[in-house]
Amino acid sequence: MAAAAKPNNLSLVVHGPGDLRLENYPIPEPGPNGDRVAIEPGAPRENDEFCKMGRYNLSPSIFFCATPPDDGNLCRFYKHNAAFCYKLPDNVTFEEGALIEPLSVGIHACRRGGVTLGHKVLVCGAGPIGMVTLLVAKAMGAAQVVVTDLSATRLSKAKEIGADLVLQISKESPQEIARKVEGQLGCKPEVTIECTGAEASIQAGIYATRSGGNLVLVGLGSEMTTVPLLHAAIREVDIKGVFRYCNTWPVAISMLASKSVNVKPLVTHRFPLEKALEAFETFKKGLGLKIMLKCDPSDQNP
Amino acid sequence: MAAAAKPNNLSLVVHGPGDLRLENYPIPEPGPNGDRVAIEPGAPRENDEFCKMGRYNLSPSIFFCATPPDDGNLCRFYKHNAAFCYKLPDNVTFEEGALIEPLSVGIHACRRGGVTLGHKVLVCGAGPIGMVTLLVAKAMGAAQVVVTDLSATRLSKAKEIGADLVLQISKESPQEIARKVEGQLGCKPEVTIECTGAEASIQAGIYATRSGGNLVLVGLGSEMTTVPLLHAAIREVDIKGVFRYCNTWPVAISMLASKSVNVKPLVTHRFPLEKALEAFETFKKGLGLKIMLKCDPSDQNP
Amino acid sequence: MAAAAKPNNLSLVVHGPGDLRLENYPIPEPGPNGDRVAIEPGAPRENDEFCKMGRYNLSPSIFFCATPPDDGNLCRFYKHNAAFCYKLPDNVTFEEGALIEPLSVGIHACRRGGVTLGHKVLVCGAGPIGMVTLLVAKAMGAAQVVVTDLSATRLSKAKEIGADLVLQISKESPQEIARKVEGQLGCKPEVTIECTGAEASIQAGIYATRSGGNLVLVGLGSEMTTVPLLHAAIREVDIKGVFRYCNTWPVAISMLASKSVNVKPLVTHRFPLEKALEAFETFKKGLGLKIMLKCDPSDQNP
Amino acid sequence: MAAAAKPNNLSLVVHGPGDLRLENYPIPEPGPNGDRVAIEPGAPRENDEFCKMGRYNLSPSIFFCATPPDDGNLCRFYKHNAAFCYKLPDNVTFEEGALIEPLSVGIHACRRGGVTLGHKVLVCGAGPIGMVTLLVAKAMGAAQVVVTDLSATRLSKAKEIGADLVLQISKESPQEIARKVEGQLGCKPEVTIECTGAEASIQAGIYATRSGGNLVLVGLGSEMTTVPLLHAAIREVDIKGVFRYCNTWPVAISMLASKSVNVKPLVTHRFPLEKALEAFETFKKGLGLKIMLKCDPSDQNP
Repeated sequence: MAAAAKPNNLSLVVHGPGDLRLENYPIPEPGPNGDRVAIEPGAPRENDEFCKMGRYNLSPSIFFCATPPDDGNLCRFYKHNAAFCYKLPDNVTFEEGALIEPLSVGIHACRRGGVTLGHKVLVCGAGPIGMVTLLVAKAMGAAQVVVTDLSATRLSKAKEIGADLVLQISKESPQEIARKVEGQLGCKPEVTIECTGAEASIQAGIYATRSGGNLVLVGLGSEMTTVPLLHAAIREVDIKGVFRYCNTWPVAISMLASKSVNVKPLVTHRFPLEKALEAFETFKKGLGLKIMLKCDPSDQNP
Repeated sequence: MAAAAKPNNLSLVVHGPGDLRLENYPIPEPGPNGDRVAIEPGAPRENDEFCKMGRYNLSPSIFFCATPPDDGNLCRFYKHNAAFCYKLPDNVTFEEGALIEPLSVGIHACRRGGVTLGHKVLVCGAGPIGMVTLLVAKAMGAAQVVVTDLSATRLSKAKEIGADLVLQISKESPQEIARKVEGQLGCKPEVTIECTGAEASIQAGIYATRSGGNLVLVGLGSEMTTVPLLHAAIREVDIKGVFRYCNTWPVAISMLASKSVNVKPLVTHRFPLEKALEAFETFKKGLGLKIMLKCDPSDQNP
Repeated sequence: MAAAAKPNNLSLVVHGPGDLRLENYPIPEPGPNGDRVAIEPGAPRENDEFCKMGRYNLSPSIFFCATPPDDGNLCRFYKHNAAFCYKLPDNVTFEEGALIEPLSVGIHACRRGGVTLGHKVLVCGAGPIGMVTLLVAKAMGAAQVVVTDLSATRLSKAKEIGADLVLQISKESPQEIARKVEGQLGCKPEVTIECTGAEASIQAGIYATRSGGNLVLVGLGSEMTTVPLLHAAIREVDIKGVFRYCNTWPVAISMLASKSVNVKPLVTHRFPLEKALEAFETFKKGLGLKIMLKCDPSDQNP
Repeated sequence: MAAAAKPNNLSLVVHGPGDLRLENYPIPEPGPNGDRVAIEPGAPRENDEFCKMGRYNLSPSIFFCATPPDDGNLCRFYKHNAAFCYKLPDNVTFEEGALIEPLSVGIHACRRGGVTLGHKVLVCGAGPIGMVTLLVAKAMGAAQVVVTDLSATRLSKAKEIGADLVLQISKESPQEIARKVEGQLGCKPEVTIECTGAEASIQAGIYATRSGGNLVLVGLGSEMTTVPLLHAAIREVDIKGVFRYCNTWPVAISMLASKSVNVKPLVTHRFPLEKALEAFETFKKGLGLKIMLKCDPSDQNP
């Protein structure tokens, strides 16, 4: 997010695993159109077959902010490919703009799952990604969304931001979870979006999804996974992963500008950039949902 | 809609063009499951290629209520193919159930147009079908919907039920309408849904739609139409019609049950079945939007 | 396949696992149109949501020939739902007609995989299903098809019927198989169709498929499978199973009638119905590819 | 097509309508990878919404060879965006390479029409574009292709390169043409690809196409067209245009390399670049189908 001019460029820099430092970086020279913009962090470097087909997120040579050696854009001034900077309308705040990135994960996941009007959707996991997925599924017209999680606190937040139903998981087997979800909805969900990466949850997703439906894997688990693949295959439940996102920024901005989606309840903590290390400590403790770093010293409001 | 038992079956019967009569028909014998249901009027008679591919509305031998020689179902007791009767949840009223049919036209049109999250949509015409199309487009996640009409009254109703923008048409050329719509939205709409059937409006729809987008023809016009087909073709604006609907009832019921769409403002007049002829007079005068015939004498509430 | 009239109905009947007996069954009474037809064995019993959406193969209450308690149609006279009997053109032989069923598995698998013009396709397994999949992939316009198998004999048959490349598997790891396939094609295949059900082959399918492509599971393996799901997910390789087929008979008949596909090389053995038990012995020994039972005593030709 | 080094760059230059001149142009400086390549003439200038979605042919600022002020690439040396130069395999000739452009029109049209295995396809017009469309439709698995034209000579060529059926048009009404096509195929075609641009032919295309099918407009007609739009709309026959092509070069090269399509019969005349004006005269007289300009003086073979 480009910020109001100030002659220093405080930047959070990763020097090694766990070694984050705040440093003063030189201010990059912008081209003639710098504006109030949101940055899409992945910008393809070459126009390869994936770009040409509209799936530029799969381009193997893509540039992605904060993927080393890039230092990322937790800084006051940042230079980025203009085609991947999107003008923010006046009625979208910087803080909403900063939430376009997680929102994009939800949009891409719901698109891959084919969520549409009247669908029943199961979202596994009520962390930040589960939450934005829930918001997007409802915005796409899902009739009912069930959210599962181990934590009652997170599920209560999910209810607050729009979950129709929640299911707290304790010791149920994957099949039992599937049965409970079907019981709650009165039918199996057409789409399941798995946001935990846990093997048992992926298994539950396969059992839970309706024949002919889609299971979208957003959570990242271990390298090898044991799953009832046969059960998915013979019921034609398609298993689809996501890699980041593509073509989501303009959609997210339209949604925010037209107030079709409300992302504000996702932000639970705010820190000025100067306190970035404290923000990361808060994150590591598992406190809160979305922790916002405020880069512009003159704008610390939500 | 099956109604509470009463030993007469008052029925509105068409004897000829303009010759509608209320008659007492015999009560058909139901099978063992008759329940509180909504009826999908089109039920295919044979399992032909269109049915097998999931587009049963295109089946040439389909049975459709009220297509002669069928007398239609403006009556108290009606027998229908059980596979095309859908159980209404307790929290969906009979009146909402009766609005599933027009809602289905909107769902089918928006699906054909590929309306999805973040889209800008142009709806031409603010009659009953334009109105349900507007409701459905918003429910599917459209960021902004512009509705056009000749009548300021209708457009004000459109605003009331959710239109983001309205455009009153007077003497503009089709190109001028397209330019005004683009001006209002800040860009061309991805989808245009034409609900008037007027040649000038179809032309405006072609000029207005974004390259690569869809123009859906819902309004029925004259047999031959003069259109800037070349302009649509070289910008890959696809022109798609609709014939009734398919696979919409379960979706519409889910939406009504979860309160994701509010159809109540569409009903402007209510008449008991006994006053059916008066209701048709009101319709012919162009008064109101949706006129509801209440078949159950013990239920005359909204 | 309906046969020329003869006053006995020799039928192969399953009395228990491995207990097949030839018996004389009563001849069913046909309706007024009995014709020269191919039978689609799966015919839905009710018009449920899956049927209405064009995926009738997923209907849980579907009738399927030879699924107990049905005795199947290895007999001279058989009565079947007329909507699932398809008239054979004069230039399609009964033997070709009998191959529509396996061809349908290939059509459904290639459709699910989205095989289209110019694609590179990997087919794992050169058994009967791998072979029809190869035929269909080429007929759909695949530029190059690689077939893998353990057996050099089968691969040589695959070459004969149209495989562009073959790869004999011995002790390679799944990753090595993927690398060899990429080496042969000069790129990763857009679509992999797995016809063995073996865990190692499914794993190879995931490693081998191009980012954004499809892996179709046709072979049936064990209940639980260990796979590099993460590797599929982050490269957006979709994993899709198949359950039998739908909407394939008319297509297969068109292809056979227009000589766009040649299925005759698939048949390696022929037996008259009277020698059905001998045919099953041949099958159990793993000899041959497709073993044809000739039901009409007056037609024993290819 | 880059050519063998020779120290002159003979170029055909358009000075005005009908004013073509052969001139010696300076040889552009290539980058470090010049290779044996085919050039896709349309290369987007900026990464806009159309490019990002995989429909870069619709990008309004696209660069297109030979669109003024560009002089085109009828010359010996030409410099082009490397991402839109595709390496030709050794077994694809320069002449085949030069036919990728028209082949691309056919690929894009058949894709837009959704041509697939077993389809019946109507191609209106047996000029060069109709011919490549026919080739591509067959390569995509169409079971039967009918080609219509006014000229018996052209239709006989169509038969030669693979048309299953041809229909010579004289004074039939659009409805009569549709009936004749249905008579020939035994059913209506799922896809019609209109390559003439004539109003009567577009009308015939609407009447001829099966309910739920696609009519693709490739031929360019006049600005306004009178068509039975209602007839298309209520049968859900979608009308889709094409603008050039996108994502076709790699596919076309794969097809040529694997010999899945044979484009050689399309070339009826060959001229060395020095005789370019004579070639244009031949074209203007309507003689021949594809007229090939041979740019490399040392390679004048097919």
